[in-house]
Amino acid sequence: MKKLLLLLIIPCIGYSQNKVVDATRNWKEKEGYNILASFAELLSIPNHGSDAVNIRRNAKLIGENFTNRGFKMQLLEVEGAPPAIYGELKTPNAHRTVCFYVHYDGQPVDPSRWVNPPFEPTLYSNALFNNGKPIPMPKAGDKINENWRLYGRSTSDDKAPIIALLAAIDALQNSEIAFTSNIKLFFDGEEEMGSPHVMDYLTNFNSLFEDIDVWLMVDGPVFLTGQPVLNFGSRGITGMELTVYGATRPLHSGHYGNYAPVPGQMLAALLATMKDEKGKVLIEGYYDTVEPISDFEREQINKIPKIDEQIRTDLGIAQPEGDGENLYERLLLPSLTIRGLSSGNVGALARNVIPNIAVATLGMRLVKGNDPEQMMNLVEAHIKKQGWHIVYDEPDMETRMNYPRIIKVEREKDGGPASKISMNHPAVLPVIESIKSFTGDNLVLIPSSGGSNNAKVAVLDGIKMPGVSISIANHDNNQHAENENIRIGNLWFGIDLMGVLLTMPEPKTELKKK
Amino acid sequence: MKKLLLLLIIPCIGYSQNKVVDATRNWKEKEGYNILASFAELLSIPNHGSDAVNIRRNAKLIGENFTNRGFKMQLLEVEGAPPAIYGELKTPNAHRTVCFYVHYDGQPVDPSRWVNPPFEPTLYSNALFNNGKPIPMPKAGDKINENWRLYGRSTSDDKAPIIALLAAIDALQNSEIAFTSNIKLFFDGEEEMGSPHVMDYLTNFNSLFEDIDVWLMVDGPVFLTGQPVLNFGSRGITGMELTVYGATRPLHSGHYGNYAPVPGQMLAALLATMKDEKGKVLIEGYYDTVEPISDFEREQINKIPKIDEQIRTDLGIAQPEGDGENLYERLLLPSLTIRGLSSGNVGALARNVIPNIAVATLGMRLVKGNDPEQMMNLVEAHIKKQGWHIVYDEPDMETRMNYPRIIKVEREKDGGPASKISMNHPAVLPVIESIKSFTGDNLVLIPSSGGSNNAKVAVLDGIKMPGVSISIANHDNNQHAENENIRIGNLWFGIDLMGVLLTMPEPKTELKKK
Repeated sequence: MKKLLLLLIIPCIGYSQNKVVDATRNWKEKEGYNILASFAELLSIPNHGSDAVNIRRNAKLIGENFTNRGFKMQLLEVEGAPPAIYGELKTPNAHRTVCFYVHYDGQPVDPSRWVNPPFEPTLYSNALFNNGKPIPMPKAGDKINENWRLYGRSTSDDKAPIIALLAAIDALQNSEIAFTSNIKLFFDGEEEMGSPHVMDYLTNFNSLFEDIDVWLMVDGPVFLTGQPVLNFGSRGITGMELTVYGATRPLHSGHYGNYAPVPGQMLAALLATMKDEKGKVLIEGYYDTVEPISDFEREQINKIPKIDEQIRTDLGIAQPEGDGENLYERLLLPSLTIRGLSSGNVGALARNVIPNIAVATLGMRLVKGNDPEQMMNLVEAHIKKQGWHIVYDEPDMETRMNYPRIIKVEREKDGGPASKISMNHPAVLPVIESIKSFTGDNLVLIPSSGGSNNAKVAVLDGIKMPGVSISIANHDNNQHAENENIRIGNLWFGIDLMGVLLTMPEPKTELKKK
Repeated sequence: MKKLLLLLIIPCIGYSQNKVVDATRNWKEKEGYNILASFAELLSIPNHGSDAVNIRRNAKLIGENFTNRGFKMQLLEVEGAPPAIYGELKTPNAHRTVCFYVHYDGQPVDPSRWVNPPFEPTLYSNALFNNGKPIPMPKAGDKINENWRLYGRSTSDDKAPIIALLAAIDALQNSEIAFTSNIKLFFDGEEEMGSPHVMDYLTNFNSLFEDIDVWLMVDGPVFLTGQPVLNFGSRGITGMELTVYGATRPLHSGHYGNYAPVPGQMLAALLATMKDEKGKVLIEGYYDTVEPISDFEREQINKIPKIDEQIRTDLGIAQPEGDGENLYERLLLPSLTIRGLSSGNVGALARNVIPNIAVATLGMRLVKGNDPEQMMNLVEAHIKKQGWHIVYDEPDMETRMNYPRIIKVEREKDGGPASKISMNHPAVLPVIESIKSFTGDNLVLIPSSGGSNNAKVAVLDGIKMPGVSISIANHDNNQHAENENIRIGNLWFGIDLMGVLLTMPEPKTELKKK
């Protein structure tokens, strides 16, 4: 772990100095204590999407903050869901509309695992793992250290971009620097629950969104090395549960051992046919629909910092799956993962029985080109080819007596496809260019993250608009876990970055009606 | 199930009428109500081996009952264990000493699952599954129906033989029929806990046991068809737990899926190499030490009633393991059973992770000739041959980085070998002959049960004495489960059988000093 942490605290170097960044930096210097105070105010409101009262308190406070900066704000409502926060600010003579996507809800918390209560944001002199100690919030004139950390739920995921945006707006407005786009806001209140209503919002209120040229989706951590990162896609997700049947009831392993079928053995035999030793999926057609990697993407993948050895050392992995490709290349292929296995009991609870069933839960992460249902069809076809009789309910006695190998397949229903935008799409090129003008070659471009993101799918595929994911949080922010935090330097970087995005150059070509 | 039950209530037919059986039958007719009353008295004392107070109350009552019939009784003590009940009765001019092994402890109970409290024995007009209703215990002169069932813990397993023995002794003594052997008793108080101290008793008190010619171990149910059964062996048992390692912690299945090793997949691949589709174990040498089946045994196996189709229909098994051999032939081979499988979670608890470990618990039932440690050596050798690095503790980081496939092996420590006596051993031939004189060709001879029995191992292998297992309980007695019961007809059969065993013909040859 040591080696990794040293890398994580490398500051983001190579920012170009320009008028915008001068403005945001001066603003932070002068108003840093106020920025942190208003961040703490927002963080002190619990924000799980299922907490209907508090999630609206968050929405109200956020709305007021943007209203105070001249935005026209509105809460969008869909029944049974937290409101989505919508906002807009017209910029005179702007030919482009950008929409910032952020989510203001957070993961559930287990306060017993937190060093401080999750909704009592607490400033530390450094990260906990670096022996940071609690310190008071700064007052006017106090020097603010970039290695300080603010602990609390959603410090990084994903309230920081809201505060960064507000501070950048203040900085630019105070320096009388004009925005270069019309600005829209769409703040999701249920991202951590999988954004189940995001398409409802985008379609029910479609008139609000149809003039957007590019979505800037600000969420998640920077690269493992501390470098800023843009990411152009996310994997799809689906899965299925397989149940293999032995006898109708668990049997005494003495009285029937060597006679009754052993479901765990049968399941192991089946699963073993699905992947080879190197992790290559052996299911026919599994890779056939994968959208090929473009030359431009390949070029960008090759520029991604070489972090595989660090990852392996951190995780104790002698040999990753694959043929030596790096992590980000592997993420451009669909995965097949045994997420769960169960039959009888292990450990102290193990009994002398032949269990009557064995269950495996398969997770599949999909890439651009894969259709979830069709991928599950391929898995089922493979299972049949191995001689299994597939059922979709518990087998009855007649079925049991007719087929020696019976498997129940239960498909997951709430998955979805991957989404990915070309790295040189005309709407995102100005985004890349303006960020590079600030970060230099430090910027890491990732064709797709490995995870899945419903909001991204909704924007890129649902309403078919271009968008790109932008991150500001430190990589070691404990996202989703206890003691979530943000490094102040990363929040500060986010403020600069928002300033850069609010003032990025006019598009070279007319973007509308592509 | 229907077809099976019809067979189960076929009475044991073909008993030859002779003086002894006349005596036991007359006794039951006259004293049946008393026999059931004293059975109920014994059943009302809780008898789990860990219940130190109650297990001694059982021992005391049993001791008094035999003392009253002229036996010299003694409680044998080993520290930290329930007492073993020892008894002896000399028979003038007898040239043989038989020892009855019975266990007076019972399985633990979960009273919430019982129709009646497990230690309030309750008589029913028929089996519960045949709509039997509770009836009062009979009084003097009441006719007793053989289809009645007495419900309560240890009615079948294994207090019935104690009551049967007492009643048979009464019947013979009242008819002035002489026993033909010196009688010894060894009643185990911890069989259901695996008889961990049985060898201590047999060796600490060896002078009490050294003159025994044959052990009659009375326990368990009759054959599935209702026919009486003798059984000449039991399988050994051992096992091991295998833990396969992925990364040092569970990983996000999106961020790392297709890169991080999947322990469930690796484990499935390994387990799949251990057995073929027909259940044949593919581990080199696994069958090499199996003691061959003798011609006599083969002949007896062929005479065993053909029950495989019934078993398959009852259990919903289309295709058992093996090549069409019957159950009892399959039990003469060592088994390898996946008793438990675990990795991550399945069902509602399944999460989008790549679990960091996968665990399998293997159970092995051994046959005569197999040494437990050597069989586990073979499994480990097989694992190594598949390219795995075996550890016996959690792997450290250096080990993790050096070996792509790491597996922890934990051997079970409290197993033991099989034990089996030749079916035509001179000490057991008179047992077979006398029982056959009573049951005719109804008697089923089974070379070995599939289960394991420490007491049998201790007698046959520990102190190297001949012994045979005899059963009286109905097959559908719910042994080890809730609502354990005995069919009165089976208890009655047991009384006749004990009478027959107490008066079996003198041995043809001098048995001692073989």
